[in-house]
Formats: sequence, C-alpha cells, structure tokens
Amino acid sequence: MDNKTLATPITGPMRLALLDRSNPVFSCYLVWMSLLVLKMLCMSLLTARQRMRTKTFANPEDLRLPKLSEVRFGDAHVERVRRAHRNDLENVLPFMLMSLAYVATGPHPMVARLVIRIGASARVLHTMVYAFVPVPQPARALAFFTTFLITCFEAIYVLVCCIKYI
Amino acid sequence: MDNKTLATPITGPMRLALLDRSNPVFSCYLVWMSLLVLKMLCMSLLTARQRMRTKTFANPEDLRLPKLSEVRFGDAHVERVRRAHRNDLENVLPFMLMSLAYVATGPHPMVARLVIRIGASARVLHTMVYAFVPVPQPARALAFFTTFLITCFEAIYVLVCCIKYI
Amino acid sequence: MDNKTLATPITGPMRLALLDRSNPVFSCYLVWMSLLVLKMLCMSLLTARQRMRTKTFANPEDLRLPKLSEVRFGDAHVERVRRAHRNDLENVLPFMLMSLAYVATGPHPMVARLVIRIGASARVLHTMVYAFVPVPQPARALAFFTTFLITCFEAIYVLVCCIKYI
Repeated sequence: MDNKTLATPITGPMRLALLDRSNPVFSCYLVWMSLLVLKMLCMSLLTARQRMRTKTFANPEDLRLPKLSEVRFGDAHVERVRRAHRNDLENVLPFMLMSLAYVATGPHPMVARLVIRIGASARVLHTMVYAFVPVPQPARALAFFTTFLITCFEAIYVLVCCIKYI
Repeated sequence: MDNKTLATPITGPMRLALLDRSNPVFSCYLVWMSLLVLKMLCMSLLTARQRMRTKTFANPEDLRLPKLSEVRFGDAHVERVRRAHRNDLENVLPFMLMSLAYVATGPHPMVARLVIRIGASARVLHTMVYAFVPVPQPARALAFFTTFLITCFEAIYVLVCCIKYI
Repeated sequence: MDNKTLATPITGPMRLALLDRSNPVFSCYLVWMSLLVLKMLCMSLLTARQRMRTKTFANPEDLRLPKLSEVRFGDAHVERVRRAHRNDLENVLPFMLMSLAYVATGPHPMVARLVIRIGASARVLHTMVYAFVPVPQPARALAFFTTFLITCFEAIYVLVCCIKYI
C-alpha cells in the first residue's frame, strides 16, 4: 500500500486495488481462507474414517471393497462428524464470502486482520470440540458464536458502507 | 464509472476495476450479499429456537443445560427449518458466487443491479414462506425459481462472455 | 491502473489486476465456475424429478398438487441425489472459493488453467457416476479425490505465497 508514490487520493477510482496481494489485509484473508478450506476438506476424510471404522456405508456400490452386505445409516459417530461438517457449510462458507466483501470495502487494516484471524481460528476450535473430542458445552457454543458474531459485524460494516447502493 | 474523464478505452486492460467499490454494481452486490448472509445466519438462530421449543437436541453434550435425558431427531418443526437452511446452502451460496463472477464480466449496470436485487429479494421471500410461516404452494416454488433462473441467466451470460477461454 | 506511468515491475503494486477479465486465467476461472454452478443447479431439478417419480415429498404444503395424503422421507433414489448434492456443497463450493484465492495469487497461467479445468471436469464426472448412473467404485472415489487433491494443492500454494501475512 505504498501510496506515497500516488498523487491520486486513496478513495478515488484510481486507488490501489483492495482485492490484490499488494493489500496486506487481502493476503491475510487468503492465508486464513486456505487454512479453513483445508480444515473443511479434513471433515470429508474424518467422515470416511468413521464410515470405515463403524462399517456404515450409504451407497450399495461402496460395499464391495469392505465386503459388506447392506447399506447402513444413522451411526452416531458418523452423524456427529456429518453434523460438524454441515455446520461448517452453514457458517464457514458465509464467513469466507462475507470476509471477502468486507475486505473489498477497505476496512481499517489492523481491525480487519484481527477479525479475520479470530473468526477463522474460532472455526478450527469449533471443529476440535465438535468432531475430534466432544467437549462439554459451552465450548462449542462459544466457538460457534465467535465466528457468528464476527460474520454479523462484517455484514453490518459492509451494509453501513454501501447502503446507498441498495 | 465516469470514463469520460478517461483517455483509456473501457474494454482494454487499463479500464477501471470492476470488483471495486468505485463500481456501483459491485457496491450493490456487496449490500445484497450482506443482507443474504445475515438472513442465512438467522436460520441458525431459528433452528436453535425450534430445538429449544421442541426439546430436540442431537448431541449428548447439549442435554445438560436444558436438563434432558436423551438426544432426539426428526422433529417436524426442526426439520422444516433445517430443510429451508439446506435449501439456502444449495441456492444462496451459488447465487452469491455466480453474481460475483457476473459482476466481474462487466454487465450493463442497470440490468445487473436489477438482477441482483430481484435474485436476493426472492430468497428472503423463500425463507419467509418456508421457515417462518408455511404458505400453500406455489409461493415457495415461485420464490425458488426466481433466484434459480436468475442464477442460470448469470451463468449463461458469463459463459457467452468468456467461452473462448474454456 | 494507468500503467503508462509504469516503470515498476509487473510484481509491484501497480501491476495489472489479477481478478479482471484481462487476465486469461481469471476468464478461464469464470467459465468453469459458471459450468459448475449450472451443474449444481441441475441437482435441484434432479431431486425434484426423483421426488415426483417416487412421490416422496417432505413438506405437507407440497402434497396438494400431486394429490397425495402424507409426507414421506428416506426414499433411496431421492436420498442418492441428495447425497450427491450435499457432496457438491462440501467440495464444489470450497473448490470455487479456493480457486478464486489461487488465481488472486498470480500462479503460472498454464498450470493454473490446467488445474481449474481438471478440477471442474472431475466434479462433472463425479455427478455422472453418483447421481445419474451409479457406477461401481472406484469411479466415484477417483473423481472425488481429483478435485479434493487439486483444492489441497491450491490451498498449499496460496499458503506458501502468503504465509508471512498470517
């Protein structure tokens, strides 16, 4: 963001692109999004592991290799990982999209990076206490609402910035 | 987008960035995406409310505070909100991503803003008639297909614009 | 982005925007994302078709037109399409977001386009062998892991590029 070399004001249409690696906030976003995507992909492997361990396969064509005779549903261990995965879909994907929109509005760099780091870390914690080692509440609720409230904050920030274009 | 002041042509690599707040279409996108994200987050609260009301909790660790003795599944009220939420995942998230791609191709500003506003509003309506107050069909089907067809339109527009890069 | 004034190298903050149609990699991304979004929308129609064919409707308000008397759940054909659709949510959406981040880091154009094309095509294949015509394993597993590993590769690439901004 070396705008010393720029004669144009930072708010004009010529200002440096916000969705570009030259913007440290965007780079920070890229790092944490990658970590969250890797975390989400792990959920698929975790589901597969629980399916193997408990011999719970939902498709007839999956039964050949483990030499099983019927499909099964509703195993508690498989369903727990699946619920955690679905919770990710419901919260991590909106958080990613919302953070991108938030970064695009050009928020204060320090605040933005803090918000992205905390929001993403809370989701990693959420997975830990939900799918890896079930921990008594309110561990999961706290992790859940941290990202939840951060996503709300980002949405309201963007709304305040751009509401006149509604 | 006041490109009268610009000597550079609008279609060249020098044109103003489309994914930037200086583009009113992108700002319009940001507003409606924020509203849709807030709407999606509400679905989690709505599910939680139905779980409390009907005492339907899926995880053993959630039973301590409401002093219940066993997990439950399949309550009709909880499942209705969950279906509405899943429908959001299946349609709102693709609509958001597709609209971003559509805005990035530089469509006609008036059309683009209309398309974004209608597509997003229809999803708010869809949630109303599905999760809040179940309304007889075809209310839900109409709301569903409005966003569905708009997303198709955006996808086809982008395809026509960029097909040579396939 | 007036790069007439540019004596600066292409990697400096003044370089051409990566998330712009003037970047062929981004245009390639736009095409394939549109195809994947259209494919995902087809899943909804496919679910609807199976619901009609097997008369399996989950909402009481959907029973009026087909003149049925009760809601049904768990039909094998409907559930297969729904599992395929959920698998899309779990994998296509992260792939789309991750590819966008990957394109934003400015990877080698040839590699990037190859990666996007293969990753997106594999998901089309995955739907074919899962929801259209169930094919014996490992067809589905191969299609699944192709996109899975490509998404991992993209995430790791972005991490390596931007890790100092963590």
